[in-house]
Amino acid sequence: MSDTLMPKGFRSAGVSCGLKRKGRLDLALVVADRAVPAAAVFTRNLVAAAPVHLSREHIADGRVRAVVINAGNANACTGVQGMADALATAEALAAQLGCATQDVIVCSTGVIGVPLPVDKVIAGCTDAVAALDTSGSEAVASAIMTTDTFPKRVVRTLDVAGRLITVEGIAKGSGMIRPDMATMLAVITTDAPLTSGACDTALRMACGRTFNRVTVDGDTSTNDAAVLLASGDAGGADIDEGHADYPAIASVIEQVTSELSRMIARDGEGATKLVVVTVTGAVDESDAEKAAFAVAESLLVKTALFGNDANWGRVAAAVGRSGARLAPESLAITFAGIEVCRFGGAVPFDEEEALLALKRDEVDVLIDLGVGAASATVLTCDLSYEYVRINGEYRS
Amino acid sequence: MSDTLMPKGFRSAGVSCGLKRKGRLDLALVVADRAVPAAAVFTRNLVAAAPVHLSREHIADGRVRAVVINAGNANACTGVQGMADALATAEALAAQLGCATQDVIVCSTGVIGVPLPVDKVIAGCTDAVAALDTSGSEAVASAIMTTDTFPKRVVRTLDVAGRLITVEGIAKGSGMIRPDMATMLAVITTDAPLTSGACDTALRMACGRTFNRVTVDGDTSTNDAAVLLASGDAGGADIDEGHADYPAIASVIEQVTSELSRMIARDGEGATKLVVVTVTGAVDESDAEKAAFAVAESLLVKTALFGNDANWGRVAAAVGRSGARLAPESLAITFAGIEVCRFGGAVPFDEEEALLALKRDEVDVLIDLGVGAASATVLTCDLSYEYVRINGEYRS
Repeated sequence: MSDTLMPKGFRSAGVSCGLKRKGRLDLALVVADRAVPAAAVFTRNLVAAAPVHLSREHIADGRVRAVVINAGNANACTGVQGMADALATAEALAAQLGCATQDVIVCSTGVIGVPLPVDKVIAGCTDAVAALDTSGSEAVASAIMTTDTFPKRVVRTLDVAGRLITVEGIAKGSGMIRPDMATMLAVITTDAPLTSGACDTALRMACGRTFNRVTVDGDTSTNDAAVLLASGDAGGADIDEGHADYPAIASVIEQVTSELSRMIARDGEGATKLVVVTVTGAVDESDAEKAAFAVAESLLVKTALFGNDANWGRVAAAVGRSGARLAPESLAITFAGIEVCRFGGAVPFDEEEALLALKRDEVDVLIDLGVGAASATVLTCDLSYEYVRINGEYRS
Repeated sequence: MSDTLMPKGFRSAGVSCGLKRKGRLDLALVVADRAVPAAAVFTRNLVAAAPVHLSREHIADGRVRAVVINAGNANACTGVQGMADALATAEALAAQLGCATQDVIVCSTGVIGVPLPVDKVIAGCTDAVAALDTSGSEAVASAIMTTDTFPKRVVRTLDVAGRLITVEGIAKGSGMIRPDMATMLAVITTDAPLTSGACDTALRMACGRTFNRVTVDGDTSTNDAAVLLASGDAGGADIDEGHADYPAIASVIEQVTSELSRMIARDGEGATKLVVVTVTGAVDESDAEKAAFAVAESLLVKTALFGNDANWGRVAAAVGRSGARLAPESLAITFAGIEVCRFGGAVPFDEEEALLALKRDEVDVLIDLGVGAASATVLTCDLSYEYVRINGEYRS
C-alpha cells in the first residue's frame, strides 16, 4: 500500500474552471489510455440529475475512456437545457481526446436547480486535458469536494500470479449522503484486466456492502454515481467473474470502497466522530439493515452521540420502530464497548467511563435484537451544531 | 368555543409527585364520574413501555373510569418490574376511586430505561384524587409536559339537537414525535353520549388524519397513547357510528386533534416555526403521504427552513427518493406562497421577498408531483441549533 502508487494506464487532473469561489479546484478528469472495460451505478432518486441520465446511456456498452466531474453545480432539475449541457460537455471532451462521445461519463455535484455554466465547464475540460498526468489523483480528490473537509483517496495493491495489481478509489461526501444502490460520487480505477462484466459485478457487490451502508443525513442525492474502470495494464489474460483470480481482486476493490465509506462517514457534515452501528441477532440481513439504519438516522441518537451521552433508551426506541423483528426482553445494547442494556433493561455503568469512551473520534454501537443470527453494519456520524450551521446558512 | 368550558361528567387534577425537578407538576389524573365508553390507540413501536402493554389490556372492554399520566419517567425498557409498577399504579388508583383496576388507563412519558419510582407515583395519585376538580384541565396539560414549552389544550363545542356538546383535548409533544397509528400522549374527553364503538372509530379516524401526520424528528416513541372518553352527560340517547349525529361529533373531535397536532408541531424541540408540507398531484394518498413525510423529515430541508432559505432543490431531492411515483418534468414547488420550481426547473424569484416570507412563524411548502389527483398534508417544524442543544445536553 502506498499513496504514491497509481494503477497503470490512467492519467488524471484537477483544475479550476470558476464554479467554486476563490479559484478552488472544481473540475476533475480521469482518462484511460484507451476505452477500457468499465461499470457504473447511479442514484435511484427519481429526480436524477442530467449527467446521471446521460451517463446511464453511456455506460450501457461497458466501456469508458474518460470520467469528467464538476463540483459547484449539480446540473439537477435543469430540464432539457441541463441534458444539452451534459451532452455538450461529453462531446467537447470526446473531441479533444479523439474518442466516441459514448465513452465519456459525466458527473456533477453541487447546488440543485441552477443552470450549469457549460462554457466554463468546457473551458475547464480543455485545461484538464492539457494537465493530464499520472500523478493527478490528489488534484482529482480535491476538485470533487463540496462541503468535505478533506480529500478522500485510497490506494491498495495485491499480487496476482506475480503481477502487481493496483486499485485506486477517489470519492466525495459529505451531505445529502444516503446512497441507494449507488453511492455518492466515486471513481475507482484499476490496472487489473477485468472484463466489463467483472467490473459490473465487483462494483455492485462493493457498493452494496460499503457505500450503500453509509448515511450522513438520510437524504439520497440526485447525483450519486460510482464508476469503476479497468485498464488491464497490469498484464495477463482477461479476468471475468468465474476466473480464479477474480475473488482476490474484487475483495481489494471492496477494501477500497470500504475505506472510502469510513472517510465519508467520518467527514459527514459537522461530524465530530465516526459512528459504527452494528446490529446482530436479526432474523435476516434485511431486518438487521433496517434496524441499523433506523439507529444511524435517528436524530435523537445522533444528538446524544454528539453530547457523549450513552442514551441507550433512544437506541431501543429506534430499533423498536424500525420494522425489524425483535424480542424486547432479549434486547442488548453496547456503547463504545460498555454494556448499557441487557435483557431489554438497564445495566448499571460508570457514567465517567462512558463519557470518556464516547468522546473518542470513533464510537461503536452494538445492538443484539435477540431473535436470529443475521447482522449488518451501517456507518454514520453524530449531529452537531455545525451541521445546522452548514445547512442553515449555506445554499448547497 | 371557550377555554373555560369543559365536558360534563369529568374531573381532573395535576400535581407534583417528585419525578420532575424543582417541584414542577408531573402527575395528571382525568376521572369520569363513572366508567364510561372509551377507546385508545397506542404506539406500534415494538419496544413499547410497560404502561402501554397494561393499558392495551385495560381498554379491551371499551370502558374507562380514569386516566393517570406521569411525566419524567417513561417506564420503558424496565422489564418485569416495570409491568409490576404500572399495575400497582392502576391498582392503587382503582382502590381510591372504588372502581375496577381494569377501568384505569396508565400512561408514562420521560426518560427510557430508568426504574419508575412507583412509591412517588402512588403517593401522587392520592394527592391527585384529593385535588380532583372540574377546572383541573390546565394543571393536567402542564403536568404531562416534558420538553414542551407550552401546555396544549383545545376545547370545542357543538349544538346537537338543541344540546350543547363539548369536546376537550389535552396533549404533549415535543420530541420523539412521529406517531404511528397512535400518537404522542393525548386525552380527549367529551360529554357526548358516544358508544365505545363510536369512540374507537372516531379516535382512529382523527388520529389517522391528524396526529399520525405530525413529525418532529421521525422517532416514534415507546410510549405513544391517545385516549378518548365519552361521559354522555350532555344527555340524549346513545350515539353509535350509524347515528345521524355521529358525523358532526366525529368532525369536532378531529378538529380538536388537528389543532393539538398544530400545537405539537409548532412546539417541536427547538422549533422556530410550524411547517405545513402539502403534497398534491400524487397517484394515491399513500404516495402523497410518503413524499410529504420524506420532505418533512429531511434534515437538509429542515435546516434550510431554519435558515429561511427557499432551497427547493432539497425538496426535489427528498420527494425523488421518497418512493412516491412522480414526473420530474412536471414537478412544481411553492414555498410560503412563492413559486420556486415549475416543470421540474427553477422559477426566478425575489430572494428578499422569499426571505421575509420564510421568516414567518408558519410556512407552507406545496409540492405537486404531477402524476395524479391525490394529496396529503404533514405537519413538522424546522431544525435549529436549539434542537441539538436540547438533545445533545439532556438525557430525555
